[in-house]
Amino acid sequence: MSREITQTEKTKIRRLPKRGVYDRETIYKILDEAFVCHVGFTIGGKTFVIPTGYARAGDNLLIHGSAASRMMREMAGGIEVCVTVTLIDGLVLARSAFHHSMNYRSVVIFGTAEFIEDESEKYEALRAFTEHIMPDRWDAVRLPNAKELKATTVLRLPIEEASAKVRTGNPVDDEEDYALDIWAGVIPVRLAVLPPVSDPRLREDIEMPAYARNYTRQREEQ
Amino acid sequence: MSREITQTEKTKIRRLPKRGVYDRETIYKILDEAFVCHVGFTIGGKTFVIPTGYARAGDNLLIHGSAASRMMREMAGGIEVCVTVTLIDGLVLARSAFHHSMNYRSVVIFGTAEFIEDESEKYEALRAFTEHIMPDRWDAVRLPNAKELKATTVLRLPIEEASAKVRTGNPVDDEEDYALDIWAGVIPVRLAVLPPVSDPRLREDIEMPAYARNYTRQREEQ
Repeated sequence: MSREITQTEKTKIRRLPKRGVYDRETIYKILDEAFVCHVGFTIGGKTFVIPTGYARAGDNLLIHGSAASRMMREMAGGIEVCVTVTLIDGLVLARSAFHHSMNYRSVVIFGTAEFIEDESEKYEALRAFTEHIMPDRWDAVRLPNAKELKATTVLRLPIEEASAKVRTGNPVDDEEDYALDIWAGVIPVRLAVLPPVSDPRLREDIEMPAYARNYTRQREEQ
Repeated sequence: MSREITQTEKTKIRRLPKRGVYDRETIYKILDEAFVCHVGFTIGGKTFVIPTGYARAGDNLLIHGSAASRMMREMAGGIEVCVTVTLIDGLVLARSAFHHSMNYRSVVIFGTAEFIEDESEKYEALRAFTEHIMPDRWDAVRLPNAKELKATTVLRLPIEEASAKVRTGNPVDDEEDYALDIWAGVIPVRLAVLPPVSDPRLREDIEMPAYARNYTRQREEQ
């Protein structure tokens, strides 16, 4: 079964089309490694871009809507959004200023996001947010009560009109520039996880759990 | 002289207003540490959010427009944008699922971005992009020629309608939850810089420069 996503006018990568990727596997790996998205939407002719948490549940993106809830609540039912997720992997230093670049993996999803009203669906979404940030955490925490569920806004966006864009590898210079007396290369960057810091108010008899001690964002074979 | 930015209907932080910051010093420090922004704009009723590089030049944000050039070029003169820059500093693990959060510093700028047409201004913008990513690099590279300048799209956005939002520190739980048998704390994260990798086609007699070897994104006293 092909899991290729159909390209549309909006998702077709025009600028540097060889960097465009449309298979769900690539798109989902990027979505599963990152944990902050930028949600763009337009209200009253004004465009807003808001960073927020998210999780993937199958072929849907669940978006933590609280950050934008007041504005987004004004939209009845659904809201047209563009959600972008970006991972930066390296700085690409070419011999020419012009060919300087970055290695990155990004995903853009267009669609209509709908508010999740159903309580049990919302509960599952909160589980997904928590587990997306930190696997195994959900079973350890004090779970949401009815009042907290009510106070949480969750949007569901089908991952249908979506594409990824990926750049990897070395600088690419104009052929004649390779002879120049200029250092070129890649400086890899990544999200580093530092040792967890216990809450100063933590009860003294509580130990740091393994999922926190061994936390990493790198997924699978990377 | 006050460098406070006037709040507007759009920039006033409504959700968790105590996290809102409006002084230029805080906003500029965030802009100077990060190097990727998410540019949101609306064309033909559709909202797009595109990640791209930028630099700050005084009270202007210079945006590398090539990623969106085809679409943005269709706009004559200026284009209304919302530009968001986000730095993630930590995962905040509270005792309740509901109070899980992140430590972050983000900036949102609204305004009309104008294409820079003047060649020498564009040249200075390219210098700013390069130096923003890597100080001292500009003096080492093969500089842009007329053809390359022409092929580069640069947008200038005045940093006028702007705000920052910052969360720092420990989890904040409901008072009765502090007694629970649950670990809580913060997992700090940051952008790590790995050792530079020379281009396989690098001339063997060229050494890695100090600005690449000692590269860091952390600015000043952090």
